[in-house]
Amino acid sequence: MDEQAFRCLKVNQTRLMKDLHYTCQWGTGKRWGFMATETGMSRLSLSDTDKLARDWFVETTKSLGCSVTVDAMGNIFAIRPGREDGPPTCAGSHLDTQPSGGRYDGILGVHAGVEMMKVLNEHHVETAFPVGVVNWTNEEGARFPISMVSSGVWAEEIALETAHNLQEVGGGSATMKSELEKIGYLGTTPASYKSMPLAAHFELHIEQGPLLEAEKKKIGIVKGVQAYRWYTIEVLGRDAHTGTTPFSARADAMLAACRMISVSHDVAAKHSALASTGILTLSPGSVNTVPGNVKFSLDIRSPQDATVEAIEAELKQEFSRLMSNEVTKGLDLAVTWKTDSISPATHFHGDCIAAVRASAESVTGSSSLAREMVSGAGHDSVYASRRCPTSMIFVPCRNGVSHNPEEFTTAEDCRIGAEVLMQSVLRYDKSRCQ
Amino acid sequence: MDEQAFRCLKVNQTRLMKDLHYTCQWGTGKRWGFMATETGMSRLSLSDTDKLARDWFVETTKSLGCSVTVDAMGNIFAIRPGREDGPPTCAGSHLDTQPSGGRYDGILGVHAGVEMMKVLNEHHVETAFPVGVVNWTNEEGARFPISMVSSGVWAEEIALETAHNLQEVGGGSATMKSELEKIGYLGTTPASYKSMPLAAHFELHIEQGPLLEAEKKKIGIVKGVQAYRWYTIEVLGRDAHTGTTPFSARADAMLAACRMISVSHDVAAKHSALASTGILTLSPGSVNTVPGNVKFSLDIRSPQDATVEAIEAELKQEFSRLMSNEVTKGLDLAVTWKTDSISPATHFHGDCIAAVRASAESVTGSSSLAREMVSGAGHDSVYASRRCPTSMIFVPCRNGVSHNPEEFTTAEDCRIGAEVLMQSVLRYDKSRCQ
Repeated sequence: MDEQAFRCLKVNQTRLMKDLHYTCQWGTGKRWGFMATETGMSRLSLSDTDKLARDWFVETTKSLGCSVTVDAMGNIFAIRPGREDGPPTCAGSHLDTQPSGGRYDGILGVHAGVEMMKVLNEHHVETAFPVGVVNWTNEEGARFPISMVSSGVWAEEIALETAHNLQEVGGGSATMKSELEKIGYLGTTPASYKSMPLAAHFELHIEQGPLLEAEKKKIGIVKGVQAYRWYTIEVLGRDAHTGTTPFSARADAMLAACRMISVSHDVAAKHSALASTGILTLSPGSVNTVPGNVKFSLDIRSPQDATVEAIEAELKQEFSRLMSNEVTKGLDLAVTWKTDSISPATHFHGDCIAAVRASAESVTGSSSLAREMVSGAGHDSVYASRRCPTSMIFVPCRNGVSHNPEEFTTAEDCRIGAEVLMQSVLRYDKSRCQ
Repeated sequence: MDEQAFRCLKVNQTRLMKDLHYTCQWGTGKRWGFMATETGMSRLSLSDTDKLARDWFVETTKSLGCSVTVDAMGNIFAIRPGREDGPPTCAGSHLDTQPSGGRYDGILGVHAGVEMMKVLNEHHVETAFPVGVVNWTNEEGARFPISMVSSGVWAEEIALETAHNLQEVGGGSATMKSELEKIGYLGTTPASYKSMPLAAHFELHIEQGPLLEAEKKKIGIVKGVQAYRWYTIEVLGRDAHTGTTPFSARADAMLAACRMISVSHDVAAKHSALASTGILTLSPGSVNTVPGNVKFSLDIRSPQDATVEAIEAELKQEFSRLMSNEVTKGLDLAVTWKTDSISPATHFHGDCIAAVRASAESVTGSSSLAREMVSGAGHDSVYASRRCPTSMIFVPCRNGVSHNPEEFTTAEDCRIGAEVLMQSVLRYDKSRCQ
């Protein structure tokens, strides 16, 4: 295929959106608008509605001539043969959603892969090697609380047993294994890149952030995924009566925590990084008692591991300083850090990034409608990238909102993204012949 | 009685402490030390253990020659006759405790009043007018959730019906009225200063703060009670992904709340007042979601009403400023204030304050061992002061800790406080003849 041929392969926007919304009958969520498709999604992994969406995926890709493999984590690989045998170049994402999610996060990426199969068949395209589309299981981690767990098992970075034994949140007794069995998706193929090697992995996804929309770009060429670390910070002061305890005799854990959260923001801003606190609990929790104990989460992110480390080091110093009575003008406090999670920066593969860049230019007809970016959130492509060349394609989403029923991407942007995905897969496939 | 006579009337420290700890067999709380008396108290108002403490109070004061009146709120007035009839000059406090309270808060004040009766009898003292000791019901508000409710009814500032219908916290069906009936303390005398007028009210209490201890003072001459206002502040931002949302696109309610709490502290400090946040809740509450909604309590206190008002006005301006995107470098947020409670400053009566001052000097033999102060917490004396001349006497408590099993005041300090209380009552009684 040459450049001209790529340009002739057009995604059918109407069909793409019709298929996408058709499958959203399974797990329809909260309504936010008057139109039929203006609802969110609530399709928890391995639920009965997830089974129906999976069944549709298997039947549809089979009917398009793909061979379908289900592995021991329920990951589904639909592979279309090429001229030669070999590992497939795949488009992959996930059909599960957050309990209060939308119609695009994950779902768009899988549907774009299915649409790619339809376009290739329509145009009788023969690829050099097989190409495929993958539905990864439980990317969200919303029902079984490790996100991207099944691509993690595939990459052999998470043990199968750990994943199988994951219990559903909310106190139920279901495990990933029991639910895989129940809905008939406990495959016999080992969940491993060794049993199911991929030549490359491309993932189309909504940005989940505001940059593309703000800058009127159509495509994000994703070079990697930010490093992040999660901590639980605990501040120990002393419970005291709000009316009878002067500031000089307080060890106010709440005030100290507030100053720490403020400082974490300022230090992150200085490093062009991110710091966020999404959880805070305190005790004893009474209007007229100064809290003696506060715990809060801290999430630090940057494209560079070194920056995350530098911020951590700086904040450890700053927080200690804030504990001293010279700063609080009260009694000393104590602070402890617990590291809950370390996710190093992911750098996607240059060949894949180049394929996305070229495809974006080709599809949009301009070099100015795409921008390089680093994903702020984790995706299955993080684990895929550990075992094969990988990149991602971002499309704008309204107001940067995701994990929310109102998550929305225009049909045109979905189409553009799907076309870039298809071209990227074909360009990469083509590059394997050279 | 002359100054010499006052000085001869000594409290029996051993007896005072023996009686106090004896009654702490009813409602004994958490142990904190090895000694028999090193436990806290858990004597909720109108419980079975409160009934036993009340029975002891009634029997003991009757045996000392007092006439006992129980009003419709279960307030108990034990009155010792004087040479002439007339409203009694009373010592008053409360026998109920917090669920996790100590042996001194309230209990010391009542016992000091009973000890006063014993000393007066031993020395055959005849007062000009009657003197008494009062046990007010449910001062803590821990079981029935309005503190100082029964002195409030007596002062006719809280409706009897409101108080009677107060339901116990924790989902039980008991009301103040049902429990008063059950333990036999629903008196027939109307709960009103009109039916049971007092000439004056003196209350001995632990400081519940660190000032006396820190300054090595023995007595606090309490001139009044701080004004305070309680608010619930709600900050409205927007939930957003912590990884994908740059600071410029956030409306981070958590960060804004932290800056507000910091500012409230700084503004209060500038006014030599107090500001505290004891409760904070946020939503949605996930490590990787920037909270779109935060609510927190704000407690502002100052001896002057005008200062509390000035701080409120200043913080309303400051908080609004913090909502603007020019300050947050992000999106606009919104803030709402709800006023939950307004308690104006209480100024005690000059005659009572003078009686306490003179007594403190007399008992400690020095003018430097007492200091004037303003109570940070509310007490039954707040409502008493609305209907009769009132003042309070504070004694040091270890580390300023109260509402805690480890609350502690030395026997010597209890004795000194009880002696100042007795002298204050006698001085005030004497002053009525002039």
